[in-house]
Amino acid sequence: MCSQPRRRIAAPSAGLACALLVALLASSIAHAEEGMWTFDNFPKAAVAKQYGFAPDQAWLDSARRSSVRLAGGCSGSFVSADGLVMTNHHCVRACIAQLSSRSHDYVAGGFYAPERESELRCPEIELNELLSMTDVTARLTASIKGETPGSREAARKEQSEQATIEKECAGGDEKVRCEIVALYHGGIYELYKYRRYQDVRLVFAPEQTVPKFGGDPDNFEFPRWALDAAFLRAWDAGAPAHPEHFFRWSSSGPEENELVFISGNPGTTHRLLTAAEYVYERDVAIPERLFELAEMRGALTLWSHQSAETARVASADLLSIENSYKGLRGRHEALTAPDFMPRKLESEAKLRLAVRKNAALDKSAGGAWDAIAKSVETMRARHKEFNEIEGTSSLLPRAEPLWFGGAKLLRLARLLVRAAAEKQKPAAERLREWGEAKLPAIEQTILSSAPFAKHFEILKLTFGLTRLREQLTPSHPFVKKLLGEKSPEELATQLVENSHLDDLALRKQLYAGGQAAIDASTDPAIVLARALDADGRAMRRWYEDEVAAPQTSAEEAIARARFAISGTNVYPDATFSPRLSYGSVKRVTSAQANMAPFTDFAGAFEHQTGRAPFALPESWNRAKEKLDLALPFDFESDNDIIGGNSGSPVFNQKQEIVGLVFDGNRASLGGDYLYDGSVNRAVSVDSAALVQALGKIYGATRILEELGIQRVGSAAAPK
Amino acid sequence: MCSQPRRRIAAPSAGLACALLVALLASSIAHAEEGMWTFDNFPKAAVAKQYGFAPDQAWLDSARRSSVRLAGGCSGSFVSADGLVMTNHHCVRACIAQLSSRSHDYVAGGFYAPERESELRCPEIELNELLSMTDVTARLTASIKGETPGSREAARKEQSEQATIEKECAGGDEKVRCEIVALYHGGIYELYKYRRYQDVRLVFAPEQTVPKFGGDPDNFEFPRWALDAAFLRAWDAGAPAHPEHFFRWSSSGPEENELVFISGNPGTTHRLLTAAEYVYERDVAIPERLFELAEMRGALTLWSHQSAETARVASADLLSIENSYKGLRGRHEALTAPDFMPRKLESEAKLRLAVRKNAALDKSAGGAWDAIAKSVETMRARHKEFNEIEGTSSLLPRAEPLWFGGAKLLRLARLLVRAAAEKQKPAAERLREWGEAKLPAIEQTILSSAPFAKHFEILKLTFGLTRLREQLTPSHPFVKKLLGEKSPEELATQLVENSHLDDLALRKQLYAGGQAAIDASTDPAIVLARALDADGRAMRRWYEDEVAAPQTSAEEAIARARFAISGTNVYPDATFSPRLSYGSVKRVTSAQANMAPFTDFAGAFEHQTGRAPFALPESWNRAKEKLDLALPFDFESDNDIIGGNSGSPVFNQKQEIVGLVFDGNRASLGGDYLYDGSVNRAVSVDSAALVQALGKIYGATRILEELGIQRVGSAAAPK
Repeated sequence: MCSQPRRRIAAPSAGLACALLVALLASSIAHAEEGMWTFDNFPKAAVAKQYGFAPDQAWLDSARRSSVRLAGGCSGSFVSADGLVMTNHHCVRACIAQLSSRSHDYVAGGFYAPERESELRCPEIELNELLSMTDVTARLTASIKGETPGSREAARKEQSEQATIEKECAGGDEKVRCEIVALYHGGIYELYKYRRYQDVRLVFAPEQTVPKFGGDPDNFEFPRWALDAAFLRAWDAGAPAHPEHFFRWSSSGPEENELVFISGNPGTTHRLLTAAEYVYERDVAIPERLFELAEMRGALTLWSHQSAETARVASADLLSIENSYKGLRGRHEALTAPDFMPRKLESEAKLRLAVRKNAALDKSAGGAWDAIAKSVETMRARHKEFNEIEGTSSLLPRAEPLWFGGAKLLRLARLLVRAAAEKQKPAAERLREWGEAKLPAIEQTILSSAPFAKHFEILKLTFGLTRLREQLTPSHPFVKKLLGEKSPEELATQLVENSHLDDLALRKQLYAGGQAAIDASTDPAIVLARALDADGRAMRRWYEDEVAAPQTSAEEAIARARFAISGTNVYPDATFSPRLSYGSVKRVTSAQANMAPFTDFAGAFEHQTGRAPFALPESWNRAKEKLDLALPFDFESDNDIIGGNSGSPVFNQKQEIVGLVFDGNRASLGGDYLYDGSVNRAVSVDSAALVQALGKIYGATRILEELGIQRVGSAAAPK
Repeated sequence: MCSQPRRRIAAPSAGLACALLVALLASSIAHAEEGMWTFDNFPKAAVAKQYGFAPDQAWLDSARRSSVRLAGGCSGSFVSADGLVMTNHHCVRACIAQLSSRSHDYVAGGFYAPERESELRCPEIELNELLSMTDVTARLTASIKGETPGSREAARKEQSEQATIEKECAGGDEKVRCEIVALYHGGIYELYKYRRYQDVRLVFAPEQTVPKFGGDPDNFEFPRWALDAAFLRAWDAGAPAHPEHFFRWSSSGPEENELVFISGNPGTTHRLLTAAEYVYERDVAIPERLFELAEMRGALTLWSHQSAETARVASADLLSIENSYKGLRGRHEALTAPDFMPRKLESEAKLRLAVRKNAALDKSAGGAWDAIAKSVETMRARHKEFNEIEGTSSLLPRAEPLWFGGAKLLRLARLLVRAAAEKQKPAAERLREWGEAKLPAIEQTILSSAPFAKHFEILKLTFGLTRLREQLTPSHPFVKKLLGEKSPEELATQLVENSHLDDLALRKQLYAGGQAAIDASTDPAIVLARALDADGRAMRRWYEDEVAAPQTSAEEAIARARFAISGTNVYPDATFSPRLSYGSVKRVTSAQANMAPFTDFAGAFEHQTGRAPFALPESWNRAKEKLDLALPFDFESDNDIIGGNSGSPVFNQKQEIVGLVFDGNRASLGGDYLYDGSVNRAVSVDSAALVQALGKIYGATRILEELGIQRVGSAAAPK
């Protein structure tokens, strides 16, 4: 028998096996809520065992079809028979801005359509409802029969077969979208068939200070008092759409420890990298990006303080940098947590042992770990050059560097120079990011009418050139070629002031004119981008051949081995496709803290200082007396989610909405690498808070009625 | 026999012992130049074996007494019988600034005294010449006989005995300075007796652009073209001093691979920490400081660009931040190098094994590694709180956080508040940094007449308060207490604008008035510092009791065990006292590079862009035609040095000056933790460059004659 099971001892002798057993059991219990499960492989039995509730297939199908994906990178849900959709304000912020004008600033002032006719169409939002999933692994495998796995020819054939399958599936129907998803890093390929909703209209959005309450300081934190919600409606042929499935509403929200489900589209996770890759992320890739982001944040913050104009110009860049910075800080903290690497090493050792015991797997994957370690070391030796000279995303890190300080001018110049060359090539020979499917987005960037702020461009370019010189050292040939005798500021100023790429007509002409137009251009930004392109392409070739190719092929070998051993007993890494997670509303307990997993309206007013970002809008302060301040506001639950889950519904066993996911806590950022159920939390708006705000603050009775709520706020009780 | 000795293989079986043996041999050869040796324990035999030159005791004594320490943190050397001293420009920059006035800017324009009478006295520079070293370990051990080692009473007795020994040694002579140095982390205590030179005068300094050529981009890099030199003279009783020993001059400089010595005062190294401490440095302490420094650098750089005035005001802070940032980047790179941790773990395992085999050592030190690991984890859990709330230096990291953004106002307020409390206490009960010996420096800070730039204070304080809120989160009680409803900028502005601590008279009065004056003050900065002091002291108590005490005591136990095993076969960590290192002028070779270890004058002009920091002054460009452009300029050698060695002489077997140390390359920054002879390089000005510059650019014939050089530049040849 094991004595002292709660005490962790580095037992050197007989106690060890016992201690290990205890540790393993403890860890399997602690992480029961782990997993972003596909709807066709949900661990029903495990949920039943733990919570006494066993979802059946009809329940799963209904939950899936009541959920939607926002094609731009978010999640949402149908919440009425008439196509009302709930999601986050931050998921539709761009639409709200696009619908605003000088006279109507819906971002600052909020938006509410008092009747259906006044709902406004979002120009860029598309919703996808997942209709069906089909395993097409066998068909794809058959298509490359006879080819060497991993060869260029095999890749070409497989790609072509994928296109055929997707095309057949859509059958030319504009309302259908078919995508092949590689689950388990290629262990299974599934064909996902979606219903597309392209006419999506804005119904309600609060003032931006409400979802952004707490701003960057509160981002990724709990406790929290943000009401990050918006309502859309799917329309179809000029009338509200009528989805077959939708969620009902619970105006009382969830209880502490209640089982809750989250359905959504987690973007990417990297829980299956090798230890060598994690070490590189921890020691090189993430710190490098953080140093760059921290410095840029310092600069932009200062610049923003100069005037209302600089604040406006810098705000989108600054928001994005702050979000990346805080997100990467969280990932860095996860990777450097004392038990992270030991846990990864342990699971890696187990897998390697299992591979070694199987002759076939040993042959295909036995050498893969060392191959990855070698790729990583190759990258390490030249990562600064790669990031500064080529600057596109590499496999590691996945946070792109601010190439040339993130200056728009140079980015556009390079896109134009590369467009001319890449578009002439057959698809298979193009750079990865120039595939046919990517062209519309690139074109949108090149031909965007968004204005240029020249002084801001000079700032970013000066920053980028200074950093480039620092990273490569002043004696590096690329630095000498780039700067010559000029200082970074001088070159930046000359380029920005003399280039006319801010003129959309010129960009249109250069894009349409192809290689001849690019060759003939004397615009200094184009001239520079042309002069540097060969260096970038050389770095890229080196990277693709020496780093990416061996790394990818080794990763796939490991993934296939893992899949051969574990099958679908585990969940696949996130792929921005529909997943279901389960868990419960759960407080984080530690030596320092034991705080309720709910906040309330009273807390929001207490947290308010009146200074940005802790200022609630006038509508809230005016309504304060009418509000039930004891009602719950936001809550945390231990569901396993990640970026892409924004806007996901939180629902109970009866498929009633109890909340709306809008964030994860700081520990959840480490969920990219590892789920730790003791601290990882999803952060959601309580459905009771939505009801009270819609009713008592915004008078949005039409929405409440559509949600089936009769008497506003009365159903919910303080928790 | 070992086959394939040059190939490193992770041999799984019989080859392993052989491979290890090869690796050990290889590593002992590769690191032969490692070591910052004390003058009474120089590895004469090893040098003789490797280079065929065996320095005798007279040679060592003469080298030691020809060398000086600049009490402020640098090194130098006597280079004439009349007390001429060579050191770095950056070591005497503060003096040059102090001697400047509106009409004479010697920093920008340089300084040369054409005759002895026009040499100007530096108000704060003191030189120390090490006369003798005496082992006092036994006497100190005897003084604490009967006390529990590590107890407060033992510490008190030992401290008191040290003071007695130092006092006896100085014998009331103003010209003598006696210091007890704890070598080998307390393995040996030595009494160092110095001759003090307090009348030190400036003889020559070039324009600042010459030593700073390349600026921050070239800092810690090679190749390099900085002439970071200055000459001083030690005076005694109104006449030039006549040191007993001084170095002669080699106007031809060193050859590649020539044996060279560097004598100087390396500041601190941390080569003997445990793996747990290195992990904490790598994962927590250094990244945290780098994020902070990077962001502050971004902000200050932007602010500096606003006007000549903001550039001037921020320049000292910005220089210091850039230097810290680059230095810590180098340390981070060293700690994350692929072979760093394995090497440390290997040496730690060896030492632990040796300790375990010896019953007495096992008893005293066997548990020390786990004790340190525990301290480190304790610190990790609260490091953000400690840094933000208390912000004084901890054992780890040794880079102080920018407490409250490094704002002078809050620092002064806290110093005044703590001075009142600390000065009342007996020495043994004071905070570490308030010892009797530290009081003059604190007083100098409090009563400095240096002006306050209020707008700059607001910037730093806003930065610090914003960061504090981010690190602790907005809900932390300390944040709530500090900010209340105010935004960081609001609080910063109110404090700076309403406080009168910029008035020296007020500070004098508060300092002199003690606790009563502090209690009565209504100055808002004092009021705030008073209100926060208890929180800081509580953090500090927690830190001293839970982290520092067990960590220090375990470190000492390990140090004593190591000393018992290795004795003086190894060198002690650096202690800013005189050391001697040997090595040779050596190029760094790698797959990417194989560059000569010398630069030349031609390169300096090629490297010149005319834009700061790559602009040489008019004097150089005017003299260019007269110069021998093929003469060597700077060189690199593999001597083991670190910060504090700035200004050290590089000399040959005949004790002739061949160079002047002014920097280390980037890899040398990792020398704080580990010396790697394949990449670690000291960077020095070639003596031939000094001769050519003094003669042909500055016409400093008086100095050249004193150095014994007849025909300028003719002795040196291109390398």
